[in-house]
Amino acid sequence: MLIIPESLIADLVTPEDAHAAVEAAFAAMAEGEARNFPVVREALGEGRQYGFKSGIMPGALGVKSGGYFPGNAARGMINHQSVVILFDPETGVPRAMVGGNLLTALRTAAASAISIDRLARPEARVLGIVGAGHQAQFQLRAAARVRRFERVIAWNLHPEMLPRLGAVAAELGLPFEAVPLERMVEADAIITITSAPAASLMAPHVAPGTHLACMGTDTKGKQEVDPALVASARVFTDEVAQSITIGEAQHAVAAGSLRAEAITPLGEVLTGAHPGRRSPDEITLFDGTGVGLQDLAVAGIALRRAEERGLGIEVLV
Amino acid sequence: MLIIPESLIADLVTPEDAHAAVEAAFAAMAEGEARNFPVVREALGEGRQYGFKSGIMPGALGVKSGGYFPGNAARGMINHQSVVILFDPETGVPRAMVGGNLLTALRTAAASAISIDRLARPEARVLGIVGAGHQAQFQLRAAARVRRFERVIAWNLHPEMLPRLGAVAAELGLPFEAVPLERMVEADAIITITSAPAASLMAPHVAPGTHLACMGTDTKGKQEVDPALVASARVFTDEVAQSITIGEAQHAVAAGSLRAEAITPLGEVLTGAHPGRRSPDEITLFDGTGVGLQDLAVAGIALRRAEERGLGIEVLV
Repeated sequence: MLIIPESLIADLVTPEDAHAAVEAAFAAMAEGEARNFPVVREALGEGRQYGFKSGIMPGALGVKSGGYFPGNAARGMINHQSVVILFDPETGVPRAMVGGNLLTALRTAAASAISIDRLARPEARVLGIVGAGHQAQFQLRAAARVRRFERVIAWNLHPEMLPRLGAVAAELGLPFEAVPLERMVEADAIITITSAPAASLMAPHVAPGTHLACMGTDTKGKQEVDPALVASARVFTDEVAQSITIGEAQHAVAAGSLRAEAITPLGEVLTGAHPGRRSPDEITLFDGTGVGLQDLAVAGIALRRAEERGLGIEVLV
Repeated sequence: MLIIPESLIADLVTPEDAHAAVEAAFAAMAEGEARNFPVVREALGEGRQYGFKSGIMPGALGVKSGGYFPGNAARGMINHQSVVILFDPETGVPRAMVGGNLLTALRTAAASAISIDRLARPEARVLGIVGAGHQAQFQLRAAARVRRFERVIAWNLHPEMLPRLGAVAAELGLPFEAVPLERMVEADAIITITSAPAASLMAPHVAPGTHLACMGTDTKGKQEVDPALVASARVFTDEVAQSITIGEAQHAVAAGSLRAEAITPLGEVLTGAHPGRRSPDEITLFDGTGVGLQDLAVAGIALRRAEERGLGIEVLV
């Protein structure tokens, strides 16, 4: 099998690659050619989270394994740690072990950008971002590729983190402004990318016709936006089963204000099975929970590129 | 991280190591110091099965990933394919990837031998084996270490496979006889290790006082012994949650003839919290479903030994 270390990923997989690979994965899910297996996610104590996302799609079988280890930062390591292991779907023999940290950021940003590309109004010009962590930077870069945004407004619970995001906007040539949540009403598309336990973005903060990409809620108990907003929006997701249990929609579904049947897999928009946005005035919301097939898709790109270029370390397991 | 290939395992981990490591894992589970995470097990079509067993125990966090790929034999490969990945429980950083095929056989045989050691009558002299595949050989070797058996009797659906098992018995100096199931009544301890979809060993085939180690049923729909036998026995298991859903006890529990509360984790016998066998006449039954912590325990031995001896391949992921 081929070991593809974290240090190689930035040279092997571009944001454009991730966008195309995640689109293909979502479409394959919608067409019934790919499926995610149940997610394992366990609390280990002291804030540590560990688990697996896995699935099968044409040519790929595998798992992303890892989690969140909040003590790492103090050790000079990143808190999110993950690796992707790819197996031959016919024989079960391991094909590759791929560093999963950058891939996770790329595939998450790709999902939100795909949703903006397919669901935001074509004339969207103002991008709002709620959250200013490491992931938010990837989100901003990916979103900037799918619409001609003219400015970026952002809010974060800890405002001292916003200048870092502003620096990315400057690099992209986009004016950047830190704003109170009330001013998110100026945005045409809003990405939420926090690890908040309660809603920050409320219904009055969002103008009609906005597209929301809710990317932070991937486990029970997390929440980024007003359930009333979720209930009133046209809701899309990567996977309905995850959306209603560990995604942003969990709260509206639990409250009885949103039915699972009303949530559309984004893959159906990609394949043309669903028209997507139906009017310039409706709020569209993408509930990005993160599925194993996104991880397999981008790890598959890394493997193909590494093989083409003779990179990585071949070992026998 | 250290890559420890399948080819090294036989030199790194002995059956005695596996016995001690699995005992420690079962005891840690009983004491609440270790836990298995939910099992993922998915049918991939064409008979392929794939999934994960995982858990955490003091000093170890990890997953065994792999499955059953029935097309492999025709390709000259073994059908069961698995690898164990160990992570640092504090940081989530991968520590080792360990070939899991031999380890799986060793840890499964160890569990059954531990049950015989702790639950069979001390004077047990006749070992019965139902099944004659690859695993049965490991089972026989492990059982022979914990009791002074004087002879082995065996049955298999395909009797032409029995001579291979007989050769192992001969190597151990044990007389071996292929018998009809009715003659299993001569055995003091019986191991069932098949992949059967329906019971073969029935109540009249088992004498009072026998210990049964049912090792083959690890998924929904498999079955090795008469549910009436399960209901009338004192039942032990590696993990109750698995026993009642994917283990041999699933059928008796579904039929209402056995309650989950009546099943005792074998770890409680190891720690002394449960006395084990209560009379020379009762039938004891160990429902060995296979838990992730067994895999982590034996992989942990492989890692320690490999580090001590400077074996394996160090790679950066």
